[in-house]
Amino acid sequence: MQTVQLSEQVSFSRIVHGMWRLREWGMDKQELLRLIEECLEMGITTFDHADIYGDYSCEALFGQALREKPALRSAMQIVTKCGIKLRSAAYPEHLVNHYDTSKEHIIRSVENSLRHFGTDYVDTLLIHRPDPFMDPAEVAEAFAQLKQEGKVLEFGVSNFLPSQMEMLASYLSMPLVTNQLEISVMQFEHFEKGTIEKCQEKRIAPMAWSPLAGGSIFSASTERATRVKNTLEEIKEEIGADSIDEVMYAWLLAHPAKMMPIVGSGKIERVRTAAQAVKLTLSRQQWFRIYISSLGHNVP
Amino acid sequence: MQTVQLSEQVSFSRIVHGMWRLREWGMDKQELLRLIEECLEMGITTFDHADIYGDYSCEALFGQALREKPALRSAMQIVTKCGIKLRSAAYPEHLVNHYDTSKEHIIRSVENSLRHFGTDYVDTLLIHRPDPFMDPAEVAEAFAQLKQEGKVLEFGVSNFLPSQMEMLASYLSMPLVTNQLEISVMQFEHFEKGTIEKCQEKRIAPMAWSPLAGGSIFSASTERATRVKNTLEEIKEEIGADSIDEVMYAWLLAHPAKMMPIVGSGKIERVRTAAQAVKLTLSRQQWFRIYISSLGHNVP
Amino acid sequence: MQTVQLSEQVSFSRIVHGMWRLREWGMDKQELLRLIEECLEMGITTFDHADIYGDYSCEALFGQALREKPALRSAMQIVTKCGIKLRSAAYPEHLVNHYDTSKEHIIRSVENSLRHFGTDYVDTLLIHRPDPFMDPAEVAEAFAQLKQEGKVLEFGVSNFLPSQMEMLASYLSMPLVTNQLEISVMQFEHFEKGTIEKCQEKRIAPMAWSPLAGGSIFSASTERATRVKNTLEEIKEEIGADSIDEVMYAWLLAHPAKMMPIVGSGKIERVRTAAQAVKLTLSRQQWFRIYISSLGHNVP
Repeated sequence: MQTVQLSEQVSFSRIVHGMWRLREWGMDKQELLRLIEECLEMGITTFDHADIYGDYSCEALFGQALREKPALRSAMQIVTKCGIKLRSAAYPEHLVNHYDTSKEHIIRSVENSLRHFGTDYVDTLLIHRPDPFMDPAEVAEAFAQLKQEGKVLEFGVSNFLPSQMEMLASYLSMPLVTNQLEISVMQFEHFEKGTIEKCQEKRIAPMAWSPLAGGSIFSASTERATRVKNTLEEIKEEIGADSIDEVMYAWLLAHPAKMMPIVGSGKIERVRTAAQAVKLTLSRQQWFRIYISSLGHNVP
Repeated sequence: MQTVQLSEQVSFSRIVHGMWRLREWGMDKQELLRLIEECLEMGITTFDHADIYGDYSCEALFGQALREKPALRSAMQIVTKCGIKLRSAAYPEHLVNHYDTSKEHIIRSVENSLRHFGTDYVDTLLIHRPDPFMDPAEVAEAFAQLKQEGKVLEFGVSNFLPSQMEMLASYLSMPLVTNQLEISVMQFEHFEKGTIEKCQEKRIAPMAWSPLAGGSIFSASTERATRVKNTLEEIKEEIGADSIDEVMYAWLLAHPAKMMPIVGSGKIERVRTAAQAVKLTLSRQQWFRIYISSLGHNVP
Repeated sequence: MQTVQLSEQVSFSRIVHGMWRLREWGMDKQELLRLIEECLEMGITTFDHADIYGDYSCEALFGQALREKPALRSAMQIVTKCGIKLRSAAYPEHLVNHYDTSKEHIIRSVENSLRHFGTDYVDTLLIHRPDPFMDPAEVAEAFAQLKQEGKVLEFGVSNFLPSQMEMLASYLSMPLVTNQLEISVMQFEHFEKGTIEKCQEKRIAPMAWSPLAGGSIFSASTERATRVKNTLEEIKEEIGADSIDEVMYAWLLAHPAKMMPIVGSGKIERVRTAAQAVKLTLSRQQWFRIYISSLGHNVP
């Protein structure tokens, strides 16, 4: 498995495993431990979390499995996020979903994450969403303190537009190392808004969430999805892939921005699909055939 | 009253008084003088003008009052603007409303403003609107000359988008110290277009015009306005404010960008409402409840 | 004829001649040579090409004429473009129109262009379209090699938005010297998206393609076109122009960004129209009257 070097200290595996739905998988800690070990064997060493996943439960579930085999910690990279406050039985004081990027909340959230994971550091912390009420000076203070204390090695963002990346970066004493974005054959927002270009400009590799477009291709319930599915099927044949999933991953992996797709599945065979896609090669023209079928018109 | 330091030389009061509608108030110069003195007593020391306000009449009306008590000049900051040419009986050669940011017009406009005010400097001059026909090198020359002559202490812009701020700034020998923007619980354009973030990135505090959303909340004639009004009423109770106006000001004042609301009223009790809002505290969640009620959907 | 200095080495004539439709003109090489010489006599010394014009044929047609009088080469500037791969009988392997900004393709495309023109350098090479699959590091390598070999003097882009200009520029060892954009009295996209401002910020003069709005003004088949045509007619009378074409060119030429309109006609009298427009002066208000008639509403 290829890796992507995000900084001197931190490299991610090209395919990242995402724990967004961990709670829904209903695994016990042995089953989860096995999933983790199988990922690691495939070279998928980076695990993506957030404080809020599974109604604030996924980090702790992961931590319980990890406690079974603490030696695994040093073989993996843990990414987590903070900054969203969800309505939740655990937080009755949250009347609405909102954001909190105050210094106090960021630090407390990381401390909770560390306790849940049973580890003394996370490899990378992301601000989960751009916050219209952000005080970037506070974020910078929180990051500096967390780095100084060794609780977080590197920092990034998620779903940030270019202007938001620039604004936050202008306050930080360290570079942002990634921006986790929704990108797929059905989701071009960050091509259109210049976010992928801004990542290239800043020499940072984006992580890609929902890389399979949330299943919309499989159901093919729109004209667009049908069109894209047909093109994926054609190219699957041409390159000898096993499934159109592989082609969708390959489409992301082929891009020069060094996108890191996040596989969000608890089924090891689905994880394997992503890992296999790393070996596929897509020609420039194949990449554009998919792009154009999704656009619905020729490029100008 | 808090102040906001815009530069070494210039600080504004956190609440600014706006003279946009001065002519409509129908005050004589003693009445206006009294309004000005009452503002100053409350700590509202910054007065916002433009050459064109009141069909090119407001600066002179203000100047007439000021001439009654010239000692007040040094206790206040005068902001004015230029760059728009309005159709007006005074300027029959203006066939259409248009912009003029030529060196000649900027300098002449400031000289007119100084004569109207009866003062030898304005604290801050703003380019009123982004001008698609701008020659930024000419603006830079005008600014440099006005600064050198002591006629203008600092320079800013109004209604400029991020790209327009960057473009003009790249030509100037001094920093832009503010961007006067329409921002309110009903007007999120500059959240959406990144202008507020650009101000934060550049460490400049925006002025907020139409901070009460032009009365649309009071009439509550749309579903959105009704929704926002209801939330404002709730929060008014929670924080013990006297009116939803105060809450609307507090919503702006709470923001980390250090927004400076412009009160555009000739009624001193309305000005007092804004001044009182400075003492209110809005929690992050209260800020978001207003934001979300105006958005009409949850944050993602 | 005015010139615009793009770099120490390269200046363009204010009016550029565009060879987009050269094949359609059906000229033999003597006729084309005569057109070229007449342009040069008028001071129109810059000729705009692209590899793909005329289904990959125009560069060679131009080269055939130039071979008749090789001494003309040093009296002109040749601009060409690469990066688009069109479906074409000449390239049956192109299944869809797509982009290719790989190092290999850029270099091969320039070498083809040089062979077609029968010259050993082009004055300026443009990347024809922003490429969502661009590896800017490869573009930078290609540019560096082409410059080092003396095959291309300067580099630019075409149809690039601000974010795309910034991204590519961040990889290059030389400045971009122009951005060729669609700009006309009917096409304000690059006013709205900040591209013209970005050119001003970067001190680069844009080239303007389709400066006569593709004939939409003449047919006046929309309300907007009729409105603009009427305003152009009025101003034609006011400034003593011979045609509304001249006024459309003058509208571009008056802009402080130093726009360089591209005349795409094989009829010398039409080229002369553009050359004459350089002598016209449009007042700021006349510029805005046209702008406003095209906007369809007053400026705010």
